[in-house]
Amino acid sequence: MTYCLAMRLKEGLLFLADTRTNAGLDNVSTFRKLHVLTPGPDRVFVLESAGNLATTQEVLDRISRDLTTPNESVTLASAEHLFEAALYVGRVSRAVVEEHKQALGEIGADATCSFILGGQIGDGAADVLQIYPEGNYIRASDDLPFLQIGESKYGKFLLELGVAAHVSMDEAVKVALTSMMSTARANLSVGPPYDLALYRPGSFRVEEKRIDGGAEFLSAALEIWERYLLSAIRELPPVTFESP
Amino acid sequence: MTYCLAMRLKEGLLFLADTRTNAGLDNVSTFRKLHVLTPGPDRVFVLESAGNLATTQEVLDRISRDLTTPNESVTLASAEHLFEAALYVGRVSRAVVEEHKQALGEIGADATCSFILGGQIGDGAADVLQIYPEGNYIRASDDLPFLQIGESKYGKFLLELGVAAHVSMDEAVKVALTSMMSTARANLSVGPPYDLALYRPGSFRVEEKRIDGGAEFLSAALEIWERYLLSAIRELPPVTFESP
Repeated sequence: MTYCLAMRLKEGLLFLADTRTNAGLDNVSTFRKLHVLTPGPDRVFVLESAGNLATTQEVLDRISRDLTTPNESVTLASAEHLFEAALYVGRVSRAVVEEHKQALGEIGADATCSFILGGQIGDGAADVLQIYPEGNYIRASDDLPFLQIGESKYGKFLLELGVAAHVSMDEAVKVALTSMMSTARANLSVGPPYDLALYRPGSFRVEEKRIDGGAEFLSAALEIWERYLLSAIRELPPVTFESP
Repeated sequence: MTYCLAMRLKEGLLFLADTRTNAGLDNVSTFRKLHVLTPGPDRVFVLESAGNLATTQEVLDRISRDLTTPNESVTLASAEHLFEAALYVGRVSRAVVEEHKQALGEIGADATCSFILGGQIGDGAADVLQIYPEGNYIRASDDLPFLQIGESKYGKFLLELGVAAHVSMDEAVKVALTSMMSTARANLSVGPPYDLALYRPGSFRVEEKRIDGGAEFLSAALEIWERYLLSAIRELPPVTFESP
């Protein structure tokens, strides 16, 4: 499993991904699931992936090859809109799956992947899109402007609260890391280090940071959340029982 | 789907269950999933259920029939230990499933149920046990003394924080309701009203309360959580990016 998320904020885009991969419980490793691609001065992409690791890597390799020897009419270098780039990634993903699904199917393994693609092309709006294994895509909604792939359930409520509270980019980083931390506590197949990427529209430059499992933030976070949980609880209206 | 939880606290046991049932998206209804059984003055049980509604109801009917015309060597009236009561419920559950699984299997439906059984028998300790569809059981652990059945992922982190913060019974009620609220926001098949039950060891009397969707607690909670989320975020250590 995997947990990747992306948020679309007023100030820009935020991406966070774990790095744990596993084939069974006894074959655990660390691989990047967040990739920054800048195939031209007028465009930048962040691609996050969840699903079959081999498929993910071949998709990235094909995307990279297409930039030098284009196999497709549209590549990340030539797409004029983000949705065209998303459809292109979806086509590459389906082509890779098509090639391996029979062999993987024979051992009961799933070849498919999901992706989050974010970034900006030229004067277009910076945005985040989720690409399904079937090759189609959705945008983050205006009501809940975030996307999640992989193990999305444990950390959803924190993202919702963050959005409802109109957090700034700096605050959203902390919300996203807490969402990640709560997921990693519950699902062994999600783990540090975590890759964080921020994009401010018009900059065409992605800020990246890797956060280790021993980072000050992660060790301080649990104690601080506990304390504020207690404060919040004290302010919540009491739930009273009438005498029977 | 369903979301039921139970917590074992120093002061006693806490149970919370939603009431939404659905067969598809267009057949939604409200049924109790939390049942209090007092088959003798020296014992009290709270039974929560998740899974096939018809199976749940037949299990409850058989348990009730066994109390007047015992079909089994052990019933809830005669079990001497909580784990015996759990194994009894597991046997009844398996017997009901056995009777219906073929017919349900033909339409691709699942006949199984999971249960949480809590309470106290005589001088035994008050405790909560989870009963699997296979009829075996587990206790809540000492490290994380809560159990969840149904849609357990969305609300888990809040329960973990509550346990880590050593909340009192009154505080745990608010933690449990927030865990429920965050689950209902994310999964349409979990919804109000919510049934809450508290049990203080030695009392052999369960306090019950039904909480409607419009309850003051639920409407106030989101605003309060948002506010404390922002306060917690401000205190969390900053995540800084070095200049490249």
